[in-house]
Amino acid sequence: MVTCTGPVNIAVIKYWGKRDEDLILPINSSLSVTLHQDQLKTTTTIACSRNFQQDRIWLNGKEEDISNPRLQSCLQEIRRFARKRRNTGGSTSDVSSVSHKVHICSVNNFPTAAGLASSASGYACLVYTLSQLFGVESEQLSAVARQGSGSACRSLYGGFVQWKLGERSDGKDSLAEQVGSESHWPELRVLVLVVSAEQKSVGSTSGMHTSVGTSQLLKYRADVVVPSRMEEMIRVIRQRDFPAFGELTMKDSNQFHAICLDTYPPIFYLNNISHRIISLVHRYNQYYGETRVAYTFDAGPNAVIYTLEDHLPEFVQVVRHFFPPEVNGAEFVKGLPVCSTELSEDLKRNINMEPTPKGIHYIISTKAGPGPCVVKDPNHHLLGADGLPKKSAISD
Amino acid sequence: MVTCTGPVNIAVIKYWGKRDEDLILPINSSLSVTLHQDQLKTTTTIACSRNFQQDRIWLNGKEEDISNPRLQSCLQEIRRFARKRRNTGGSTSDVSSVSHKVHICSVNNFPTAAGLASSASGYACLVYTLSQLFGVESEQLSAVARQGSGSACRSLYGGFVQWKLGERSDGKDSLAEQVGSESHWPELRVLVLVVSAEQKSVGSTSGMHTSVGTSQLLKYRADVVVPSRMEEMIRVIRQRDFPAFGELTMKDSNQFHAICLDTYPPIFYLNNISHRIISLVHRYNQYYGETRVAYTFDAGPNAVIYTLEDHLPEFVQVVRHFFPPEVNGAEFVKGLPVCSTELSEDLKRNINMEPTPKGIHYIISTKAGPGPCVVKDPNHHLLGADGLPKKSAISD
Repeated sequence: MVTCTGPVNIAVIKYWGKRDEDLILPINSSLSVTLHQDQLKTTTTIACSRNFQQDRIWLNGKEEDISNPRLQSCLQEIRRFARKRRNTGGSTSDVSSVSHKVHICSVNNFPTAAGLASSASGYACLVYTLSQLFGVESEQLSAVARQGSGSACRSLYGGFVQWKLGERSDGKDSLAEQVGSESHWPELRVLVLVVSAEQKSVGSTSGMHTSVGTSQLLKYRADVVVPSRMEEMIRVIRQRDFPAFGELTMKDSNQFHAICLDTYPPIFYLNNISHRIISLVHRYNQYYGETRVAYTFDAGPNAVIYTLEDHLPEFVQVVRHFFPPEVNGAEFVKGLPVCSTELSEDLKRNINMEPTPKGIHYIISTKAGPGPCVVKDPNHHLLGADGLPKKSAISD
Repeated sequence: MVTCTGPVNIAVIKYWGKRDEDLILPINSSLSVTLHQDQLKTTTTIACSRNFQQDRIWLNGKEEDISNPRLQSCLQEIRRFARKRRNTGGSTSDVSSVSHKVHICSVNNFPTAAGLASSASGYACLVYTLSQLFGVESEQLSAVARQGSGSACRSLYGGFVQWKLGERSDGKDSLAEQVGSESHWPELRVLVLVVSAEQKSVGSTSGMHTSVGTSQLLKYRADVVVPSRMEEMIRVIRQRDFPAFGELTMKDSNQFHAICLDTYPPIFYLNNISHRIISLVHRYNQYYGETRVAYTFDAGPNAVIYTLEDHLPEFVQVVRHFFPPEVNGAEFVKGLPVCSTELSEDLKRNINMEPTPKGIHYIISTKAGPGPCVVKDPNHHLLGADGLPKKSAISD
């Protein structure tokens, strides 16, 4: 039995559109920041035993259908790797385990309402835990996670991670690769602004499928715009150039949502609160005459903010001022502590926006973090000795 | 003294972006439907007299600065044409008038709150009235109106009008041209859904300037997407193929708003109500398995709906059902009468949307109409014998 944790990642160059739906091969490369697992993580325990009758999976305390094709892809691929290693004598672990059935138990420490795609951390953690269980070591692990959920491949590494689209039709070169470790840019900080969604949005799988089929602009984005943006993004991350990093991040988020609008029928992930957050960020940067804060939005209305630690307290106070919260203090800002500060009247006057009470539910304050980790303490296993979820795994 | 009226037009292939800011030359061709002046019009009276000391202009009852550069462009261009005709002996009217100062009085019969760009009908009517006053007849008139406001050139013709971008740097071939007259497609009907705007949007002049400077997708739209869409749009209008016309109209509206989002900082013209109207139209069409209704949005949240007269009563009732109005009957639906009808429970159930009370203020019901017209009845002059606005011109 092995337990591991896996991180969430937030793209700054967005993945949108597949060239192969089965292998989950993208039409463009993408790049993300892996978030710290102290704030946001998936924990997965996997046990295998000759006594298990079938593969089973429990997600957040509820048993789910193991026959899900993406889940099956990951299981099959890892078992294939494990058998290959066993046959070549390269495995260091119990070589018989690969033929046993597995029980998988996985929980997220963040609510679905946070609007953070749990499929990335979920599949990354699943694949990493399976690899530990079966003693598989491979640079191809991210290709396995990719077949669970595209962006999951990026969650196999910490820090700054690119997913190269690759050229091969079998997807073997469509892999994640670290661009900078989690300690590369220690001043970089991340805020997740959790917005109230009025209605359920179109899921990203069907959304990107429709975009590929209908958006004329998407092809140009993938073929022409993204390749040069990837190069620039890697350069500005290496240089820790926040203004350039922030501006490119915002532009790429906006272009992704533009593609959604150019889709037919159009897809809207941003709502009026998202628009106001965008407006607030631009007015804040405008006031200082430089990009101090950047937003990015995925397939939902929640904003993820990148900034540097020096500017964090003031910007959090700006958010608190223009989106007066329902709850205060630590209830509003969860995660890494943020010093309190006062806003100048001049700043408030220059931003010149009507406050939107309760527009933002709460903030999660975090930073870049490492890739998946093995949890040594057996007390943290989510499965009991009987191979069934512990009670604590249901309410965690 | 001459009085004329001029129409509003609503683009179905959008104009967004100039290649020459002074001459107002666009980066792509565009195409619009001229709306009927029984519902929406600008009325302009222009007098000239040796006794006037200077050119003066009154807009909606208020004197405005005549030195506005775009106004000056139009006045100078028309006077240049008039002098040319006088010198070549081609003018049929009083040839001395061209050296006199003019008094211009102009009113719109629609409130600014309707969100219909009044600059198109305003400049088209101004240029047409000046041409009547000075006896100028020219195919270049639309090039003069274009220098007041780009889309004004399309309001010089009735029915279906394209504005060809042209190739010359002096703009002489950047002209409007009729594709089909106002009687070409009598079943086509138009609804303006007036939505409450929460905040003032970015003006279209500065918006398109920023788009040209920052949107990577705009160049591709202008160079690659629009040329083929123009051809297709002209073809489907000639064939009166509503499903194809409607789908292309919606796609081009969405792409224009996608470009606004790809602009940096991004521009949002659509609000949550606009999103809901878009959603309602797609669900309505989905129910019937064909495109019966199409939306288009300009630089604001108001929707303009194209449909055929057979489907008009039901769709108006659908709007009334899902956007329960504050006022009823003729207060809610202004303009051309719309028969009342009942909705089937099946339709309502299938559309499956939460109603949004008061989301739409009112509807203007209209259709395609003719280009600018001369008003013969001197009682309709907006200027009195003294060359100053009549009292009625202020409150019209």
